[in-house]
Amino acid sequence: MKACGLVVEYNPFHNGHVLHARKSREKTGADIVVAVMSGPFLQRGEPAIVSKWTRAAMALQGGVDLVIELPYAFATQKAEIFARGSISLLEYLGCDSFCFGSEDGRIEPFITAHTVISDQSAPFDAAVKLAMDAGNSYPASAAKAYQAIIKNDGALDLTKPNNILGKEYVSAALTSGFSIRPYTIQRVAAGYHDTNLSDDSIASATGIRKAIQEQGESLDSVSSYVPKPTSSGLEQYVSNFRSLHDWEMYWPLLKYRILSSSLSELTAIYEIEEGIEHRIKQMAKATATFSQFMTALKTKRYTWTRLQRMCIHILTNTSKEQMTNTNLPSYIRLLGMNGRGREYLHTVKKDLPLPLISKLSSYQKQDIEMDIRAAQVYALGLSEPYQASLMKREYAAPIIIK
Amino acid sequence: MKACGLVVEYNPFHNGHVLHARKSREKTGADIVVAVMSGPFLQRGEPAIVSKWTRAAMALQGGVDLVIELPYAFATQKAEIFARGSISLLEYLGCDSFCFGSEDGRIEPFITAHTVISDQSAPFDAAVKLAMDAGNSYPASAAKAYQAIIKNDGALDLTKPNNILGKEYVSAALTSGFSIRPYTIQRVAAGYHDTNLSDDSIASATGIRKAIQEQGESLDSVSSYVPKPTSSGLEQYVSNFRSLHDWEMYWPLLKYRILSSSLSELTAIYEIEEGIEHRIKQMAKATATFSQFMTALKTKRYTWTRLQRMCIHILTNTSKEQMTNTNLPSYIRLLGMNGRGREYLHTVKKDLPLPLISKLSSYQKQDIEMDIRAAQVYALGLSEPYQASLMKREYAAPIIIK
Repeated sequence: MKACGLVVEYNPFHNGHVLHARKSREKTGADIVVAVMSGPFLQRGEPAIVSKWTRAAMALQGGVDLVIELPYAFATQKAEIFARGSISLLEYLGCDSFCFGSEDGRIEPFITAHTVISDQSAPFDAAVKLAMDAGNSYPASAAKAYQAIIKNDGALDLTKPNNILGKEYVSAALTSGFSIRPYTIQRVAAGYHDTNLSDDSIASATGIRKAIQEQGESLDSVSSYVPKPTSSGLEQYVSNFRSLHDWEMYWPLLKYRILSSSLSELTAIYEIEEGIEHRIKQMAKATATFSQFMTALKTKRYTWTRLQRMCIHILTNTSKEQMTNTNLPSYIRLLGMNGRGREYLHTVKKDLPLPLISKLSSYQKQDIEMDIRAAQVYALGLSEPYQASLMKREYAAPIIIK
Repeated sequence: MKACGLVVEYNPFHNGHVLHARKSREKTGADIVVAVMSGPFLQRGEPAIVSKWTRAAMALQGGVDLVIELPYAFATQKAEIFARGSISLLEYLGCDSFCFGSEDGRIEPFITAHTVISDQSAPFDAAVKLAMDAGNSYPASAAKAYQAIIKNDGALDLTKPNNILGKEYVSAALTSGFSIRPYTIQRVAAGYHDTNLSDDSIASATGIRKAIQEQGESLDSVSSYVPKPTSSGLEQYVSNFRSLHDWEMYWPLLKYRILSSSLSELTAIYEIEEGIEHRIKQMAKATATFSQFMTALKTKRYTWTRLQRMCIHILTNTSKEQMTNTNLPSYIRLLGMNGRGREYLHTVKKDLPLPLISKLSSYQKQDIEMDIRAAQVYALGLSEPYQASLMKREYAAPIIIK
């Protein structure tokens, strides 16, 4: 059986994701599609609007055969580490290929970008440093540096968010000498960051979340952009847990954590560097909502995303020390599968280089503690008894769909 | 001017406290009455129902001339340390005497208890250890040990809560060779722990708080047990901040702190010892309210009060390390005064052995950080914008009453 891997967040799973899964299957000739999906907290430094279980179930009803979790140590990270964790897991699971959506749509410019940047790493790094010293964020600086070096009109545009991620996926595979082969398809219609819903059936997850938030959790306006299982999954979630998740829900906890921590405790948190702990304390004291806090905190030096990731690490109390042993994933956590996914897993099971965790309680090693803590903190955003029922789900068996 | 000191919590200030202040003044022949009052968190390990500012204002309208704050490092502590901090501050402020309410009512048995226990500390400690090894709490063990040693029918009954505290006040003064003289008056009517309101005008603070809680913050039933300024102070507080404070208000923060901390982080917290961090984590995971949590946590080994104090230290993130430098107070923080109090302060000001803090912003030393953090965490129990307005009060000038 040939498997194609997808790197996803599904926040929530929408029509664009259905297309991505179907086209990836076609393009790579795969028998099954495996998704490695972020857990409770996402790459942009945000809580997912619904739990990973609900998002996995949506995906399994929309063309994905097997869903595994990208551990917290890789999910809430800059593109390079996020990609390294994701692509490694797909390789370890025996996938022949992975396929990502990009603004570019051709795989060659990604391979070129990887090759050029690795071959000319000294001038590239120097150019990045120059741009950062001028006050640019890392992603903006990397894009400028690449343009300066490649001087080619058809080159990969590294200002585009999916191109950036794609380049890191390709680099992760090529740098490690993995046998998994990269593919890309062009993203349809909606841009990654588009916040408005248009009149066709594809919208970005950002736009869909915004529409949900603006309507106070009424899901009518998004139903034409998501498959039926997503609409009903979201509705079911609100009915089960009384709320979708967003950053404001965690603001009282984040503010409490910031104001009750010493500066040295804040500095021990992953990604807290360069004295930003002072600014974080000062702004948390002075603001009343997460949105006010972020607006007050933002400077040109840091992207919004990077600041939000710092906040997630503070919220989950993730230290620099805990993050030192996370070069590569050390387990594969199964979130859900359908019949084909199960069959595939059966064929690769004996050759897996990492332990496969299908039930949390059967795996007690220390390296999964960060995921359990993240799940626990994510659940604390809900009121009782919904916290408890979400945590119960965490210890139950994976989702099986016929 | 002769000053008499009182050690108080005023949670809230009631008719019994008016009597205490008046009788203390009479008995000691003092010109002014000084109260050293716990701040946001109390000796029993509970948040005060209203802020220290509101409680100080109530006291200044009920017979007290000057109110200073007992720092967090002494307020949320077992009787011995609580007493050492309080009596030291009264001595440093130049008080000639202090006067406490007790079940006993005579000062001699307190002095005898202090003398006997210091003189026979080896057999006393051995008897305490024996009783603790049999599974008793420290206070119960100390009472048993004293009875075993003194063998005297008229001896101080150390099973009574105010006698226990009183014994520690007296010991604090005598051990340090302070010039401040101890007095006691018998407590009238209500026992310290009584939870029911009786039909005369004296009720315990515990009973008054219970009546307030049971009526959902309606204050009608308590008005005959408290002076007018207390009723109106409580009403004003609810109107200003939308809520009185109780432990349940802090439960989401406490639960979050416990579940997002590692076992070693919990062990670093003051008073967390003997492996109780495991039990704390386990019970926090399994319970949905503070009351459920405490009931699940309670064992014969620990008093309810001691467990609650542990919870306060977890909530305020107070470490063993921070508590090492708290042998004696290092500042005197002024909460409020009337004209007489001001006059007294004027006469003693030049001889004070410690800095007098009347405005927080003018004193930036590290040793007051614990108090600021406690005030901040206390404020976080409120919703916004009330958090901010309570913290604004923290940085404002002391209360002045004509």
